[in-house]
Amino acid sequence: MESILRVNMRGLKVQKEQISESYTQYGGRGLSSFILKEEVSPVCHPLDRHNKLIFAPGLLGGTMAPNSGRLSIGAKSPLTGTIKESNAGGEAGRYLGKLEIKGIIVEEIPSDDRLYCLYINKDKAELLSADELKGLGNYEAVASLRKKFGNKIAIISIGQAGEMKLNTATIAVTDMEGRPTRHAGRGGLGAVMGSKGLKAIVIDITGAEEPEYADKEAFKKITRRFNQALQKHPVTGQGLPRYGTNILMKIIDDAGALPTRYFQMGQFEEVEAVSGEKQYEIIKARGGKIGHPCHKGCVIRCSRIYPDKNGQYLTKGPEYETIWANGPNLGINDLDAIAQIDRLSDDYGVDNIEVGNAIGIAMKAGVISFGDAQGAIDLYHQIAKGTPLGRIIGSGAVTTAQIFGIARVAAVKGQSLPAYDPRAVKGIGVTYATSPMGADHTAGYTIATNILGLGGKIAPLTKEGQVALSKKMQVITAALDCTGLCLFCALMMADEPKSWDDLIEMINARYGWQWTTHDFFVLGERVLKIEREFNLKAGFTPIDDRLPEFFYEEPLPPHNSVFDIPDEEMQSVFEL
Amino acid sequence: MESILRVNMRGLKVQKEQISESYTQYGGRGLSSFILKEEVSPVCHPLDRHNKLIFAPGLLGGTMAPNSGRLSIGAKSPLTGTIKESNAGGEAGRYLGKLEIKGIIVEEIPSDDRLYCLYINKDKAELLSADELKGLGNYEAVASLRKKFGNKIAIISIGQAGEMKLNTATIAVTDMEGRPTRHAGRGGLGAVMGSKGLKAIVIDITGAEEPEYADKEAFKKITRRFNQALQKHPVTGQGLPRYGTNILMKIIDDAGALPTRYFQMGQFEEVEAVSGEKQYEIIKARGGKIGHPCHKGCVIRCSRIYPDKNGQYLTKGPEYETIWANGPNLGINDLDAIAQIDRLSDDYGVDNIEVGNAIGIAMKAGVISFGDAQGAIDLYHQIAKGTPLGRIIGSGAVTTAQIFGIARVAAVKGQSLPAYDPRAVKGIGVTYATSPMGADHTAGYTIATNILGLGGKIAPLTKEGQVALSKKMQVITAALDCTGLCLFCALMMADEPKSWDDLIEMINARYGWQWTTHDFFVLGERVLKIEREFNLKAGFTPIDDRLPEFFYEEPLPPHNSVFDIPDEEMQSVFEL
Repeated sequence: MESILRVNMRGLKVQKEQISESYTQYGGRGLSSFILKEEVSPVCHPLDRHNKLIFAPGLLGGTMAPNSGRLSIGAKSPLTGTIKESNAGGEAGRYLGKLEIKGIIVEEIPSDDRLYCLYINKDKAELLSADELKGLGNYEAVASLRKKFGNKIAIISIGQAGEMKLNTATIAVTDMEGRPTRHAGRGGLGAVMGSKGLKAIVIDITGAEEPEYADKEAFKKITRRFNQALQKHPVTGQGLPRYGTNILMKIIDDAGALPTRYFQMGQFEEVEAVSGEKQYEIIKARGGKIGHPCHKGCVIRCSRIYPDKNGQYLTKGPEYETIWANGPNLGINDLDAIAQIDRLSDDYGVDNIEVGNAIGIAMKAGVISFGDAQGAIDLYHQIAKGTPLGRIIGSGAVTTAQIFGIARVAAVKGQSLPAYDPRAVKGIGVTYATSPMGADHTAGYTIATNILGLGGKIAPLTKEGQVALSKKMQVITAALDCTGLCLFCALMMADEPKSWDDLIEMINARYGWQWTTHDFFVLGERVLKIEREFNLKAGFTPIDDRLPEFFYEEPLPPHNSVFDIPDEEMQSVFEL
Repeated sequence: MESILRVNMRGLKVQKEQISESYTQYGGRGLSSFILKEEVSPVCHPLDRHNKLIFAPGLLGGTMAPNSGRLSIGAKSPLTGTIKESNAGGEAGRYLGKLEIKGIIVEEIPSDDRLYCLYINKDKAELLSADELKGLGNYEAVASLRKKFGNKIAIISIGQAGEMKLNTATIAVTDMEGRPTRHAGRGGLGAVMGSKGLKAIVIDITGAEEPEYADKEAFKKITRRFNQALQKHPVTGQGLPRYGTNILMKIIDDAGALPTRYFQMGQFEEVEAVSGEKQYEIIKARGGKIGHPCHKGCVIRCSRIYPDKNGQYLTKGPEYETIWANGPNLGINDLDAIAQIDRLSDDYGVDNIEVGNAIGIAMKAGVISFGDAQGAIDLYHQIAKGTPLGRIIGSGAVTTAQIFGIARVAAVKGQSLPAYDPRAVKGIGVTYATSPMGADHTAGYTIATNILGLGGKIAPLTKEGQVALSKKMQVITAALDCTGLCLFCALMMADEPKSWDDLIEMINARYGWQWTTHDFFVLGERVLKIEREFNLKAGFTPIDDRLPEFFYEEPLPPHNSVFDIPDEEMQSVFEL
C-alpha cells in the first residue's frame, strides 16, 4: 500500500499518511509539483519555514522497468525563486519505490542548529541525530552512515554547501557502489535541505518485497521489449555506453554551439583534449570502467569510473555538462583537473554547471584567469571552507556577477545556462527562456532534434519550428519525469514511436489503469500548467521568459548568429 | 533658455538639446522618471548600455526659493531593478538651475575602462579624462578637482564603491564648503555612474546670471512668506535646526518603533547615547557647528559639523538614518564610531542605510557580533578595498543574506528598510511595500502624521487609514520632488495648507504658468503612474508590493504587534 511520509523538522515528527485520491496519478516531478502547488505559498522565502522539500520516485520506481530509478526532488528554489524539480539517478528512487513510499514531504525548520538524519525501513521512519556528520562532505558522511546502517541502504545527503544554504547546493544520491555520485544538481535544493537541518536520508530495504503489479507477466514482457529497443538504438545502445554523455563534446563543437570562455565563442580550439573520445582513452589506459550503470536496472550504462593517474578511483566519469562548464567554458583543457572538480563537486555537494558559470564570471572579472585550472580547483575548495569568496562563487553566477559588477551574465530566472549556446541552437534557447525551471537543458532537450536528428530534424540556426519543438519536448519531458524513467530513454523513443505505447502499458500493468498515450501527454501538460501557475503566483511574468540581453545583440562566432525568436512567439509555449 | 545635455559615454560626445514641449512641466524626479519611461527599456540590465543616468534639478532649482537645491538622480536601479529617483542636497542642483540646465542624460557605456569627468560651465560642456582620479574616495577626488577647476564649482562624484559598481554605491554632491557630504544614497545609482565610466561632473557657475523670472517681484514676495513659515514652525524652525534629523531617535524609540539589533526589538536600551540631544552636546563641547545649511538658500539648516575628539572636522553631523542603521540596528552605542562610519560612507560613496542593514545580516550570520563598532568600521574599509567580504556587504542586505543563507531580511524590492519598524508604525509599512522605489521612507513619510502629529494624527498601531495616508503622502512627495524643494518643507506645509498655494505661485512666478494646487497634485499622481508603469514593464507584480514574511508573523516588542494590512488593501495605492 503506497503511502506518503510527512516529516516535521520543528516538531521532529514523522507521520505516515495514506495518499489521497488526487495524488494517485502523479509520481516523480508531477507529484512534487502537485504537492508544492497544494501546500506551499508561492511567495514564501525558499529557506524559511513555509517552504517544503519533496522527494518522489516515479510511477515506475522500484519496478523491474529499465532505467526507472530517477528520484524527483522538488521545492521552491532559492536560486530561481520558481517552483523546482531536479531529478537524480542512483539507488534512492528505486529503494523508495520498493518500500512503496510515493513521496516524502519535509516541512518546517528546526528551532536550533542541530542536524538530523531521516532513517526509513520497511517498518518505520524516524529522525535521528546527525550532529556527528556536521561539516562533512558527502563522501565522508555516506561512509559514516554505511558503517552505522550497513550496505543495504541508499543515502540521500548534502555536503558542506547544503549546510551553508548556498544557492548552488545539490542533494546527493548514492550509486550502486554506495558513493554519493548522483545529484539533484540544479536550483539549490541542497540549501533547502540544509535550511531544514536534514543532513541525510537513509533508506534501508532490508526485508522489502517486490512492489505489487496488476499484471506482472504483461509487465515483464513489455519490459523485455523496451530493453531491447534501448539496446538496439545507436545512441542508447552504443554511443552513450561507450563514451557517456561527453560524446556530445565534439558534436556540439562541430555545430559551433559550444559556449567557450563564458559564451564568447561557439568553438573551443582544444576540444580534442576534453572530448568523450579522449576521456575513453584515459579511462581505458588507467584501468577504469566504461559502461557503468548509475543504478540497478539501467541498461544504457552511460556512466564510467574515472581513476586517477595511479589507477585509483577518483570519481565517476564526469558528464558532458561538467566538462563543458569547467572546461571549454573556462578555457581549461585538462580532463584530470576537471575530474578532480567533479569529485569535489560531489563531495561538497555543489552544482558544477552553476559553479562553472560563476567561475566564468570570476574569470571575466579578473579574479583568476581563463585557463587557470588550479585556480578553479581552489575556488571549489573555498566554497567548502565557506570563505567570503567561496560563498560568492557558491551562490551562483548571477550573484557572482552582481558582486563583481558584471552585467553580462548567461542565466534565465537566476539559473545559469548549460552547455549549448542558444544563438547556435535556437530550440534550446526557447527551452531555457520558457521552462518553469529556469535555464535547464533537460526540461526540453531540443538538441535531440536540432543536432542529433532524432525524431526528425529542425536546423539549429533557423527561427522556424523551434518554439513548437521546445513545447513538444517540454510536455514529453514533464510526463516522462513523472515515471522515474531516465531522460535518455526519450532519445530512443524519439525514433521509436511505439515505445511510447510500451511505456504506457508498463504503467497500466503496474497499477491496473487504462491510460492511453494521449492521457500521458495530457499529464505532461498538466504538470507544466501547475508549475507555470506556481511561478505566476510567485510573481514571475513574461519578462522572465526571455534570454539575457547579450544573446540578442552579440553575434556568436563561428556562425555569427544571434538569438532572434520574438518574446511573443515564445509565449505560445504556455498555450497548453 | 533651458536645455538638456545628452552625454554619450561610448562616443564621448556631449550634445546640448532644446527641450521638447512634453518635458517642460517636469523637473527633478518628474523629469528623470519621464525620460526613463520615454527612453529606457524597462527590461534592460541596469549596468549595461541601455540604461541611462539622469540628473535633474527641480523646477525651482537655481531660484531664490528657500531650500530648493535638491538634485534628482534617476536610472533603472541595480539594487532594486525598479525605476529609481534618489535626490540629494548640496550645491549641484542649484548650480545646474543657474546654468538653466534642466537635465543631463548620460547614455551608453565606454568601450574601455578609462574614467571621465564631465565639465560644464555657462559656455560649454565637455568630457575630460579623469584617469588620475581612479580609485580615489570622494574627499580626495573632490579636492583634486577643486585644485584644478577652482572653488566656484559644485561637484557630483562617485567613490570606490561606484567605480566597483556595487549595489550600495551612492552619488555624492558637494556642500557649501565643497565637501562631498550630500548623497543620492539609495538604489545604487553610483554603480550606474560607475558603469558609464563617469567619475565626476564639475559644474562651474563662473559668470552665470540669475535665472529668468516671469514675475520676479511676486517671486520675491512669496519667497519671503514661505521662508517665514518655515522659520516659525516648531519642527523646521526649532527642532531640526537645533538637533538635526536625529531629533527623531528618542521619539521613535519612545514609540517602540526603533528597529534594534536588526529588527528584533522596537527599543534600544542605550538610546540616550546615540540621541540627537547627545550629539548636540558632543558637537557643542568640541566646537563643531549646529544649524548648518547643506546648500545656499536653505533656511532650515538641519545639518551640523561633527568634529573629532581634537576638535578637527570629521564629517557633517550624521543623520538619524545613518545613526540608526549603524547604531541601534547593530547594537552600537558609540556616536564617534558612527561619525567615523559617516565619514567613510561619504568618502567611499556607499548608502549607509543599506550597508548598515547588510552588516546587521552579517551580525546575524555571526561574521561579527552585535555591538562590535570596530568590526563594523572594518567592514566599511573592506568595501573600499574590494575584498570579497567587502563586496558582499557593499552589495546590500539582500545579497549578504543570500550569501550567508539567511532567510529573514528586511527589504522590499531588494532595498533595505530604513529606521522605522512597520509593525509599530503601519503607515510607513504601506509606503515601504508600495512605493515604486522599494522600501524608502522619503517616498511617503507617514511618520509625520503617525508619530509627529503633523497635519492630523493617525495612530501608528491601527490598521485603519494607513493606506490612504501613505497614498496621500506618496502623491505629495512625488509632486514636491519635481520642484527641488527639500522634503522637510512638507513638515511645515502639513500644518500650513496655504503654503501649498505659495509653492504653486512661486512656480507660476518663475515660469509664467497658471498652475493650480490641483494641477500640482495631478503632477504627483502622473509621476507615480509613470514609475509604476515602468516597474510593471520591468516585470514587477503585486507580489512585490508586500513586506517580508517575518513582519506578518513575528511580533515586535514592546507592542508585540505584527504588520497586518492586507495586500489587497495596499493595492489601492495604485488607483490614481
